[in-house]
Amino acid sequence: LRAILGSAQDGALKFLESDEDVHMAVERVLTERIGAAGAKLHTGRSRNDQVVTDVRLYVKKALSRVLDGVVGLQHSLIRRAEVDDRAIIMPGYTHLQQAQPVLLAHYWLSFFFALEREKDRLRHAIESADSMPLGAGALAGSGVAVDRKKLAETLGFAKAAENSIDAVASRDFVLDALSCCASAGILCSRYAEDLIIWSSKEFGFVELDDAWSTGSSMMPQKKNPDSLELIRGKAGRFIGNYTRFAATLKGVGLTYYKDLQEDKEPLMDSLAQLDCVLAVFAQVVKTLAVNSKKIASTLDSSLFATDLADYLVRKGLPFRKAHEVIGNIVKTCLQQKKQLSELSARDLGRFSTLFDESVKRVFDWGEALRHRGVSGGTSPASVGWQIAMAKKMVAKKR
Amino acid sequence: LRAILGSAQDGALKFLESDEDVHMAVERVLTERIGAAGAKLHTGRSRNDQVVTDVRLYVKKALSRVLDGVVGLQHSLIRRAEVDDRAIIMPGYTHLQQAQPVLLAHYWLSFFFALEREKDRLRHAIESADSMPLGAGALAGSGVAVDRKKLAETLGFAKAAENSIDAVASRDFVLDALSCCASAGILCSRYAEDLIIWSSKEFGFVELDDAWSTGSSMMPQKKNPDSLELIRGKAGRFIGNYTRFAATLKGVGLTYYKDLQEDKEPLMDSLAQLDCVLAVFAQVVKTLAVNSKKIASTLDSSLFATDLADYLVRKGLPFRKAHEVIGNIVKTCLQQKKQLSELSARDLGRFSTLFDESVKRVFDWGEALRHRGVSGGTSPASVGWQIAMAKKMVAKKR
Amino acid sequence: LRAILGSAQDGALKFLESDEDVHMAVERVLTERIGAAGAKLHTGRSRNDQVVTDVRLYVKKALSRVLDGVVGLQHSLIRRAEVDDRAIIMPGYTHLQQAQPVLLAHYWLSFFFALEREKDRLRHAIESADSMPLGAGALAGSGVAVDRKKLAETLGFAKAAENSIDAVASRDFVLDALSCCASAGILCSRYAEDLIIWSSKEFGFVELDDAWSTGSSMMPQKKNPDSLELIRGKAGRFIGNYTRFAATLKGVGLTYYKDLQEDKEPLMDSLAQLDCVLAVFAQVVKTLAVNSKKIASTLDSSLFATDLADYLVRKGLPFRKAHEVIGNIVKTCLQQKKQLSELSARDLGRFSTLFDESVKRVFDWGEALRHRGVSGGTSPASVGWQIAMAKKMVAKKR
Amino acid sequence: LRAILGSAQDGALKFLESDEDVHMAVERVLTERIGAAGAKLHTGRSRNDQVVTDVRLYVKKALSRVLDGVVGLQHSLIRRAEVDDRAIIMPGYTHLQQAQPVLLAHYWLSFFFALEREKDRLRHAIESADSMPLGAGALAGSGVAVDRKKLAETLGFAKAAENSIDAVASRDFVLDALSCCASAGILCSRYAEDLIIWSSKEFGFVELDDAWSTGSSMMPQKKNPDSLELIRGKAGRFIGNYTRFAATLKGVGLTYYKDLQEDKEPLMDSLAQLDCVLAVFAQVVKTLAVNSKKIASTLDSSLFATDLADYLVRKGLPFRKAHEVIGNIVKTCLQQKKQLSELSARDLGRFSTLFDESVKRVFDWGEALRHRGVSGGTSPASVGWQIAMAKKMVAKKR
Repeated sequence: LRAILGSAQDGALKFLESDEDVHMAVERVLTERIGAAGAKLHTGRSRNDQVVTDVRLYVKKALSRVLDGVVGLQHSLIRRAEVDDRAIIMPGYTHLQQAQPVLLAHYWLSFFFALEREKDRLRHAIESADSMPLGAGALAGSGVAVDRKKLAETLGFAKAAENSIDAVASRDFVLDALSCCASAGILCSRYAEDLIIWSSKEFGFVELDDAWSTGSSMMPQKKNPDSLELIRGKAGRFIGNYTRFAATLKGVGLTYYKDLQEDKEPLMDSLAQLDCVLAVFAQVVKTLAVNSKKIASTLDSSLFATDLADYLVRKGLPFRKAHEVIGNIVKTCLQQKKQLSELSARDLGRFSTLFDESVKRVFDWGEALRHRGVSGGTSPASVGWQIAMAKKMVAKKR
Repeated sequence: LRAILGSAQDGALKFLESDEDVHMAVERVLTERIGAAGAKLHTGRSRNDQVVTDVRLYVKKALSRVLDGVVGLQHSLIRRAEVDDRAIIMPGYTHLQQAQPVLLAHYWLSFFFALEREKDRLRHAIESADSMPLGAGALAGSGVAVDRKKLAETLGFAKAAENSIDAVASRDFVLDALSCCASAGILCSRYAEDLIIWSSKEFGFVELDDAWSTGSSMMPQKKNPDSLELIRGKAGRFIGNYTRFAATLKGVGLTYYKDLQEDKEPLMDSLAQLDCVLAVFAQVVKTLAVNSKKIASTLDSSLFATDLADYLVRKGLPFRKAHEVIGNIVKTCLQQKKQLSELSARDLGRFSTLFDESVKRVFDWGEALRHRGVSGGTSPASVGWQIAMAKKMVAKKR
Repeated sequence: LRAILGSAQDGALKFLESDEDVHMAVERVLTERIGAAGAKLHTGRSRNDQVVTDVRLYVKKALSRVLDGVVGLQHSLIRRAEVDDRAIIMPGYTHLQQAQPVLLAHYWLSFFFALEREKDRLRHAIESADSMPLGAGALAGSGVAVDRKKLAETLGFAKAAENSIDAVASRDFVLDALSCCASAGILCSRYAEDLIIWSSKEFGFVELDDAWSTGSSMMPQKKNPDSLELIRGKAGRFIGNYTRFAATLKGVGLTYYKDLQEDKEPLMDSLAQLDCVLAVFAQVVKTLAVNSKKIASTLDSSLFATDLADYLVRKGLPFRKAHEVIGNIVKTCLQQKKQLSELSARDLGRFSTLFDESVKRVFDWGEALRHRGVSGGTSPASVGWQIAMAKKMVAKKR
Repeated sequence: LRAILGSAQDGALKFLESDEDVHMAVERVLTERIGAAGAKLHTGRSRNDQVVTDVRLYVKKALSRVLDGVVGLQHSLIRRAEVDDRAIIMPGYTHLQQAQPVLLAHYWLSFFFALEREKDRLRHAIESADSMPLGAGALAGSGVAVDRKKLAETLGFAKAAENSIDAVASRDFVLDALSCCASAGILCSRYAEDLIIWSSKEFGFVELDDAWSTGSSMMPQKKNPDSLELIRGKAGRFIGNYTRFAATLKGVGLTYYKDLQEDKEPLMDSLAQLDCVLAVFAQVVKTLAVNSKKIASTLDSSLFATDLADYLVRKGLPFRKAHEVIGNIVKTCLQQKKQLSELSARDLGRFSTLFDESVKRVFDWGEALRHRGVSGGTSPASVGWQIAMAKKMVAKKR
């Protein structure tokens, strides 16, 4: 059999019209090479249990490879957070409006931890595929007394499927693989969206490396973030591949119907494309140029508003009251076209008697970050802790 | 706060136009009732982290309720397999063509074991939701030194989210819940499809209880399996709800955008509808009338073909050869309009000298079943073992 | 340029690493062959307008080919309705329960008329693609004074796109093509579902030709309707391809983004697969063997119930009352295990005095059909009229 | 019947448990009010044909209302293009990179013309729904000699359905309505995406009116474009509603199955939500504040690159050569940190002898626009012509 595999890999193995499928072709060649014993190859097997066994072996392997891809991207993110961008303060956005200052490292780590969940999903999908159908026969169980437990061990499956009808009919593990791919693809699309926006001249936060962007020979200053656009666009593909097979599977009764043959194309497509998305994203992140000056110049001093409110809360003002006071201050700034940080303690004192000279310390980006020292927050200490945790997670054997 | 909840449940709590959302309404009423301290309620919180905390609490509870629904359906299936239909032999189908005889109990168990995997999915989705965002603030972490670990314990979360940006931005747990619902819904659709076909006059294997079918006052003999048709139809809904939010989520950068508000309707719809699907299917299965005579009369003796081939294999003929011999026998039967089981050992002897009198034992449905004694097969022993395993699985605390 | 096309078709045209795309490759070769004038080829063009012009030309042609495929299937259906199966009476089903007798020809015509609507959709999608982007440049309009009206005429477009931004950004015509394919694919899936059920031994209404089914060498009596199962399964693919590109397009602002490159694979896949589905279905229908005896034997005399009610309505009984009377009659038949058609006028007289001897004419399948002589009904006259109309429709030039 | 409708609208009409559906309830009340003749109401009808007739009437009306919504949004766009923003020059983007200067009016018109195609789709979907099933009975045609042609005229249908089986079974018109909604929703999502980005502080091109954005009482400078985010998010909903019913319909054979009941919720949801999306978008566009100064300050002089190339082409240089020359010029500017527009004719002369003093006229935004005078281009003349055409289109009665 190994020799036949070799022939197949060399391209020496020729399929005949009369070979109904790959299994028959292998059996034919085997019989040609070793004689009558070859005709025993199919003993205790049926095409129904064999095909789905093959797909399960394939899925387990491919998902494991995808897991490696996720880890690769995570390494890129840790490096950016720990080394390249650790001290860069940037505006954090909600609704694409500046909301609060954050460390760029904190942003990269948000991607890291989200990917950690994708790994959980992938592991779950691998477990879901890890049950051996072989021995289920066409649907009723093989008439040959196969030791399915041993067979499962030999083939590296966690167990033999408990019921032969379920074994040949079920394809939920395919849906699991497809929904994993969709979930990871959607996550990548969301971060790609941000980076595409940050690559615009108007934001100017980042610039993709030439290897991962497309220029124009006529307008060399224009660098299109094509790699990220493709990553973003492919999320639709992952969703579509899921929907595609879900709609097909939904329409099929038991046990085996030829409709199920439609599982392979979306499955192989999603798995291969996700490999690609993850590998490219890892490179994009790794080679990204960050324009820290542009980022710093963009920070709006009104981002201190929350910190100012927290100042009052710490002085004992109920949150809702503090909220109101700050609202009035910011409104006045807007009317007077003043920056929040330009206000003196005395100016502020007109809005609340709780303000004293100590308030000036609020108007400092570093202070604003340190202030969010809660676990999971963006303070340098919290980010340091996150990096340590991330490194532990990524080092862990699956 | 408990008293306010009581007012809400009584309908006594009135929302005002000025209450931006439920959080603000509660804070307002609290302040009305207990004074200034009420205005402190929002301390260390932001709408962004609060909303997603609520959704996570909701999802965990709702998925747990769905799990109960799956178990309920599993109980119905075990009862049918063990008590009601244990000895009924029916044709097993591939391509809706009779392929091999199976026990109806074996069929019910195939559904049971498939549902066991849905439970794994649900548990995974619960874990996925089991991370507390609270304390993430708007996106950068709360400015108040909240003890998030303690808070998570109090609220029954397995942990506090590791990164505040990820905490407010991520909705992958919603996709997990939606894909769980789709997977379970598709499974139910497939079995519903079979039972709808079996309910036709032409098959006539089963008859739904009046409570779960719709009659016509004019044609009382016509019983429409409406319940199963709705179960089948709703699988499209689950797929659509998944696609719906997946497409929305894919289009959203970080951190929070209002687009994310579109998560709630599909989520609540899928969870509520799946409850319904599972509860109804459990009742349909429980109350189903099985027409064992009609089933028995449908069995085609050509289903012995595999057994006959296995007979030859046991006598030492290579599988492929045996396959050929049987093909010739069945073809001859078709030409002579004879049943396979009508052939004598001598008739068979014309096709292979390996046949002797012992072959007559092959033409017995009970024998054909016993013959598939491989683990997971349809033999009575294997089915008995499956029932025992199923009972253990269903009894296990989650 | 024709010579270059020839080289491409011969395989003689070699692409170089430095050719960014097919346009550049053609320009390079042209310049190599005719000198400097070749470098003028791209005048008044941009990759953005050129690519989408190509796709539109492709879609128009491919959809037109699909239209031919629909017409081919319609011809098969007309032939069955008019020639092969004109007089075959079969049970019409709702909920897969026998409901009323219909002509099999009437059933085939239902498919025909539904396909007529698919043709409307295809024509609409062709119109939707029939607008020329060329001259839109990168997005702002070409800087060369191209006569776009003339260009459109030359290329066979109905018009030049009205706005250059819209011209390069819009891909709604791709969605139109994809939703057309989904609609036609779903329709085919529904009819395939019926025919798969009818191919079961239990129904036994039809048998697929060997060329369009798969046998088993061991069980030659088993004919799997693989062709129809694939047709049914592929409908999921069409839905998925639509969803896939819809989700991608939804996430893309203006004008051109690389995400849009993801339009081609689902588009080409759906168009090619639908060609296949239509061609195969036409052959399946054409070569189908109908078992009229089995069909006739299946008709249940309770199908006369509606006719019996109509009898009473014609005698002046309000519909709701007639409905009640018949309900009682059928119920009594069920209890007494009698066929409805076995009842004499006197038996019936016990339920309503309106019955007289003329009622016996009701129990005749031919009469039951003639009775539904309303336009669009299943009476032979109506079916004849439908066939005539169908032949006119199918002959009409588009 | 009108009186009963009145009672229903008043809330006086009470449904009873025994009323199987709304049709039966109306018949019952009618009989209570006018006696035995009421029991004739259902004559010539069946629930199957009646339900789908109702849905078709509903769809026609609702789609027509959506058409009005599209026209409303088109009016807002024309107004912006013609009156508010006619002379504003802005960067046109590809890949969110500045590519060429365009008139903001030209951008608004791109949306207008795209919406014109949505109107074609809506009209097609209305035609698709415009066929009357009534008289098809349960599936075989009514046994009462209904004049279906007259009935169709009375109910305002273009025609009576040609085949009774098709009439009760088909729901492709529902898919048409759903795909229309998806197409229009996706279009709106794409423009919403642009406007959300333009609303960021970093772009600063536009500011939503307070009525259509959400502020924060504490950070009054922060205006979240919630309305646009919801519009963007809802496109996922439209795609999901399509997928949902497509997957359900795909799984249903002929004729009527209860699965089809699942058509109503997605249908009504998409139609109502699209009304909302269009009405809100019309208001958002109408009330938008455009910051023309910020826009003007953003234009990058490298956008003149294409114009400079066209200058050389007009002087006779083959396009590809011109392209190369300009590439070198822009590269040199980048190296020397010079603006393209700062180069003198002499500077340019170093790259090509074709440059003379006339080149200085190229560095003028107005000139750059006029230059794109091709039909559909962004020149003021072309935009004026587009506005005129748009006004004609929008005035046209459907």
